[in-house]
Amino acid sequence: MNKAYLSLERHFARLSSLNDALGILGWDKEVIMPSGAAERRAENLAMLEGLRHEILTAPIMADLLAEADAGDDVWRTANLEQMRRQHTQATALPGELVEASAQATARCEMAWRTAREESDFKSLEPHLAEVLRLTRETAVATGEAMGLTMYDALLDSFDPGTRQTDIDPIFTSLAADLPGLIGTVLEKQASLPAVTAPTGPFPIAEQEALGRRLMQRMGFDTTRGRLDVSAHPFCGGATHDVRLTTRYVEADFIPAMMGVLHETGHALYEMGLPAEWASQPVGQSGGMTVHESQSLLMEMQFCRSLTFANWLAPQVHSSFGVVEGTAGWDATSLHRHLTHVEPGFIRVDADEVTYPAHILVRYELEKALISGDLALADLPAAFNDRLHALLGLRVPDDRRGCLQDIHWPAGLFGYFPCYALGAMTAAQLRNAACTANPAILPAIGQGDFAPLLAWLRQNVHGRARSASLPQIMQDATGKPLDATAYLTHIRRRYLERAPDA
Amino acid sequence: MNKAYLSLERHFARLSSLNDALGILGWDKEVIMPSGAAERRAENLAMLEGLRHEILTAPIMADLLAEADAGDDVWRTANLEQMRRQHTQATALPGELVEASAQATARCEMAWRTAREESDFKSLEPHLAEVLRLTRETAVATGEAMGLTMYDALLDSFDPGTRQTDIDPIFTSLAADLPGLIGTVLEKQASLPAVTAPTGPFPIAEQEALGRRLMQRMGFDTTRGRLDVSAHPFCGGATHDVRLTTRYVEADFIPAMMGVLHETGHALYEMGLPAEWASQPVGQSGGMTVHESQSLLMEMQFCRSLTFANWLAPQVHSSFGVVEGTAGWDATSLHRHLTHVEPGFIRVDADEVTYPAHILVRYELEKALISGDLALADLPAAFNDRLHALLGLRVPDDRRGCLQDIHWPAGLFGYFPCYALGAMTAAQLRNAACTANPAILPAIGQGDFAPLLAWLRQNVHGRARSASLPQIMQDATGKPLDATAYLTHIRRRYLERAPDA
Repeated sequence: MNKAYLSLERHFARLSSLNDALGILGWDKEVIMPSGAAERRAENLAMLEGLRHEILTAPIMADLLAEADAGDDVWRTANLEQMRRQHTQATALPGELVEASAQATARCEMAWRTAREESDFKSLEPHLAEVLRLTRETAVATGEAMGLTMYDALLDSFDPGTRQTDIDPIFTSLAADLPGLIGTVLEKQASLPAVTAPTGPFPIAEQEALGRRLMQRMGFDTTRGRLDVSAHPFCGGATHDVRLTTRYVEADFIPAMMGVLHETGHALYEMGLPAEWASQPVGQSGGMTVHESQSLLMEMQFCRSLTFANWLAPQVHSSFGVVEGTAGWDATSLHRHLTHVEPGFIRVDADEVTYPAHILVRYELEKALISGDLALADLPAAFNDRLHALLGLRVPDDRRGCLQDIHWPAGLFGYFPCYALGAMTAAQLRNAACTANPAILPAIGQGDFAPLLAWLRQNVHGRARSASLPQIMQDATGKPLDATAYLTHIRRRYLERAPDA
Repeated sequence: MNKAYLSLERHFARLSSLNDALGILGWDKEVIMPSGAAERRAENLAMLEGLRHEILTAPIMADLLAEADAGDDVWRTANLEQMRRQHTQATALPGELVEASAQATARCEMAWRTAREESDFKSLEPHLAEVLRLTRETAVATGEAMGLTMYDALLDSFDPGTRQTDIDPIFTSLAADLPGLIGTVLEKQASLPAVTAPTGPFPIAEQEALGRRLMQRMGFDTTRGRLDVSAHPFCGGATHDVRLTTRYVEADFIPAMMGVLHETGHALYEMGLPAEWASQPVGQSGGMTVHESQSLLMEMQFCRSLTFANWLAPQVHSSFGVVEGTAGWDATSLHRHLTHVEPGFIRVDADEVTYPAHILVRYELEKALISGDLALADLPAAFNDRLHALLGLRVPDDRRGCLQDIHWPAGLFGYFPCYALGAMTAAQLRNAACTANPAILPAIGQGDFAPLLAWLRQNVHGRARSASLPQIMQDATGKPLDATAYLTHIRRRYLERAPDA
């Protein structure tokens, strides 16, 4: 490597510190900040974002990137590539477009809160039209700079290297199989004996203590992270300081517990990134799909399995003082609660079987909005039609239809696919892990995540951005991502009721 | 005003956002941060400090400051003056000196922790010598840039406008009166009937609830601030987001409660700064003395008065479920506990009567260290001699002598005076406030701080840095700061036992 490359490492280390500051301030905003500080905090965050953009687009950066030579080292080479990628993305957009987008999405998010509450798409439409117009401009500018189509440019900003041509065949096969599969799963479920639901109240202190115990069993390092409460669970924070949240209701312990398990999957990924590259672009997580795969691998693949339920049930009993043998509390019943399938209108409440249908709807529609094939005025009807086709449900109002998600009002077009891709990636990784080390699943049945974590550290976490996700999948699972493992998983767990599923 | 001035306001608004980010990250570090993130957080904070320094010393700043015209407006004129001051301070120091000082103080602070624990001054001496050497270099460089003597340059960095020639006569009269006064106070105290101490345990949840009630009575806006726990109580945070901390022990409720009252005094000052100038230098607090005066005005002047104790006692009873009439819990006993005087070795544990003696010791010695009149090797003996002269105590080991404070190892020379100046400022402000509005003290006796806060908002908080502290004192109290009000206060409270003191 040469001097220019080393100088770039120093510049990017500063950017990494700025990212950490933004991470902690963002976490604080959701978890800690008093309400009256909201406006000022928004200014502070915008200022730090502006500084980041300034540093990244300073003339010295272009000069250094032109001169830089990373030598033969794979990590340094990948690092330089990530630096170039960030620089290209940042310089592609004129400052006025960035600012106009920030303002338009801020206004649109506000309008969306009211519109959703009142189920009034018309009031949102002009705001969303402006966001869509600016998003399309962004997609064109970024696409030109990176040699990508408009939609690929949007996808790439959340998932480096993911292309529409990769997704289309996977989602097409899913769209073909899913409605029939959901129907069969529902029939099978109806044929099973009814189970009693555990009744609460479940004291929040006990729920929290249970969540903390589970996090630690999974390998969460409590000296480098936290668990807190927020309105919407998330995993955030900074380097060596990974902070996840959940939310509690006294009537049911399952949502908070599963929230912790899900976010711990995200956290373990962050904690497993290579420390020696922590302040460089190559040391960051590989995008939204691989991140979501790590949370779903934990939550869906392993922690909703019967194998894990056998270990989990006594933990739950001791948390809430349940006497062994109480109806609805045995491992089989717990597993039935954890794998209950019920088509519904709301994406975030969906089970793992019906969830991809929600994504398919959004994926088709956002592609059409970006390409211009779908007029915004026609969005509600198109949304309701597609949801009916995939889930057989008639959306009663836009609040439970196209107004339910914040993503589009926030300008997040190209984001939705990662949720379904993450689920499929998780299924494929699980198969590979359990094949590579048959001790993984039995260990999970003892509440021991160490063998699984060791495999993930080596095959996913520790690789960070040193390789693309397709390359990581090829190396870890022996083939590119497809829907097979996910569909097989659904059949084994929900139709065959296989004891290890 | 001209364009250059308006451009400066925009640059300083960005600096203000950086300061806010540093404020929240600093608070987080003391209150929330997991231990394993400490090293990385230190890097992040240093990077943000570096960015602040870069923005402040960028060539454009010097150009704009040379061109800027603030017009006739008093606030804009003062704002430009504060901008020039910050710029002069930042450009006075070569980058290598700033970096060397940061490294030397970091090493010295670490060495100090061990040295204090082991009462081993010799092990600290080489580290402290290096810090002292660099502090003297800093004092020379800043002094030259600002036209100040070495010690004044240090003083000025904590207390803009405060000069040694102002302090010397005040501290000299104090040093003359204090030992005799302390003796008389102790005699008087010995002559009073003994009081029973309330016995605990005092549940921490109840202590916290009491603290929150008191904060709100005092006027703390809970939508713009927080109360948390940290090892050392402090008031920090950011604009419109004022965060204070305390710490609890179950055996005694008084330390945590008085900690809250003290820090709330700091917080009310921050909350009372003019919102329209929040992002500009002129809108910031006026330095450490005025800040400390606001905490001591609340804690010492009003909240340890018999007037307040009469209202406080029933609040305390209901917090801890004490039956009316229990020995040691009546208002007079509570007041006796809040005003107990006992000379001791440790500054932070000192009562308001003996506290200034601790400052006088440090003030004399740090002046002599900076001037070179005192060799570092002679510090422990000199410290012990002066403490004996002022408090009549023989320091048994350096842990309880010159090693007790972090200030000098942290490079904070010129900081100590503000504690004693703050106490005297508080006493003088109290007299002025109670003279200007005789309803203030009776209202405090009803737990109503609104009349006091209104006076402070108008005469102190709302003025921010639009005038110097000497000017603010002149306007608010009709004369410059001196020790009279403080000494009178001590005599009335501790010798005359005046019912309003």
